[in-house]
Amino acid sequence: MYELYIANKNYSSWSLRPWVLLRERGIAFAEKLVPFDGGAGANWTTFRAFSPTGKVPCLRDGDTVVWDSLAIAEYLAERHAGVWPHDPQARAWARCASAEMHSGFAALRSTCTMNCGVRVRVDAPSDALRKDLARLDELWNEGLARFGGPFLAGAEFSTVDAFFAPVAFRIQSYGLQLGTASMAYAQRLLDLPAMREWYEAALVESWRDPEHEDEVRRAGTWLQDLRTAG
Amino acid sequence: MYELYIANKNYSSWSLRPWVLLRERGIAFAEKLVPFDGGAGANWTTFRAFSPTGKVPCLRDGDTVVWDSLAIAEYLAERHAGVWPHDPQARAWARCASAEMHSGFAALRSTCTMNCGVRVRVDAPSDALRKDLARLDELWNEGLARFGGPFLAGAEFSTVDAFFAPVAFRIQSYGLQLGTASMAYAQRLLDLPAMREWYEAALVESWRDPEHEDEVRRAGTWLQDLRTAG
Ligand SMILES: N[C@@H](CCC(=O)N[C@@H](CS)C(=O)NCC(=O)O)C(=O)O
Ligand SMILES: N[C@@H](CCC(=O)N[C@@H](CS)C(=O)NCC(=O)O)C(=O)O
Repeated sequence: MYELYIANKNYSSWSLRPWVLLRERGIAFAEKLVPFDGGAGANWTTFRAFSPTGKVPCLRDGDTVVWDSLAIAEYLAERHAGVWPHDPQARAWARCASAEMHSGFAALRSTCTMNCGVRVRVDAPSDALRKDLARLDELWNEGLARFGGPFLAGAEFSTVDAFFAPVAFRIQSYGLQLGTASMAYAQRLLDLPAMREWYEAALVESWRDPEHEDEVRRAGTWLQDLRTAG
Repeated sequence: MYELYIANKNYSSWSLRPWVLLRERGIAFAEKLVPFDGGAGANWTTFRAFSPTGKVPCLRDGDTVVWDSLAIAEYLAERHAGVWPHDPQARAWARCASAEMHSGFAALRSTCTMNCGVRVRVDAPSDALRKDLARLDELWNEGLARFGGPFLAGAEFSTVDAFFAPVAFRIQSYGLQLGTASMAYAQRLLDLPAMREWYEAALVESWRDPEHEDEVRRAGTWLQDLRTAG
């Protein structure tokens, strides 16, 4: 059985990707949640015990260690149908969009860090953030129109949706606005059983990581905290 | 025939990846070099004519547009043998290392930007840069030892070597120091026919992009400029 190492559900956007992929594709795995250890290199020590980069997510399959979210997707794609779209055109597009997310959207990632349980208003979005949101809207529209939806690369949830799943939580937390089709798609992601399961678990976590909490307070005006424990 | 859009050989590290992969794997392609347009959003306009992200590299295969270096590798891997290692363990490892490079090593990438023709001494490496170099050394050592070399994931040049090819130029330009096995591997990359071809072409380019030139001057003490035109 696969073992998937992840960190706090409230904060860990990279962990969410393979987790929601495995759940939505119905692939069995054992979840190993190791919470963040509180900044300044502390995670490095904790996470190095199971992940060579000192980062999560990390998948273990027997002796095989797969330590990056995109590499995890490709590893699973060699073993299970539906991890990428079956249609070659849709698959090429899905891989481009996923790889673009993997190394891009830096402003969105750094100014609107994932924090599932809070609600914040971004008062003064930077030009870089606006540009990221415009590109995101364009990319989502293209995928939905070209492959017919309801998911980004066609009828079924695949890796590319998993890669943008953290963005759906960011849209919700920071009240970000995209076009109609993109907002509907983000809501569709939030309504998925696996996303609801992740969200409910995030809200009842009691850990508060100072670094992650500071990041979100710098992003704008704090509106609401829906987390129930802590 | 594939068309590969790239930018200046002297500067464009992401362009080098698929270019050296195609050349070393003996896959025919037409090179389309479009030089950087000089900062502040100018590339956005120039590059958007052929690439949806306004970034290079971008591969075109008939009507199919593949706009990210890692997605290009996966696209080619579906069509040509040897793009990834044949052995499943080596392939899983190679994908992890490539994806780690794709979204990581931020300090190395931002403080030692690729500039093939210059020689600079990094006087005060930051902690983040030191950490990136330590991880790089560890990763390369692991691959070389585990799969027997001379390449990172075994006997043949594959995508993972292409992904670290820009790092070999950085090591040369900035005089970065790694352990013995890693230094020998970097030199092996620099000695490849495709790398020599890229390097010679970089040296005779006459374009000077102010943004890229400033970045390199901020990195340390300028020692030498081997570029012959300009
Ligand atoms: N490229 C990696 C990135 C993973 C990553 O940055 N994970 C974050 C958590 S969301 C982490 O573990 N950070 C811990 C640290 O940097 O100390 C992937 O896709 O898996
Ligand atoms: N994730 C992309 C990144 C490509 C990238 O950042 N390319 C740089 C050139 S090395 C670029 O085109 N920059 C132009 C700009 O940002 O204006 C890939 O792997 O292809």
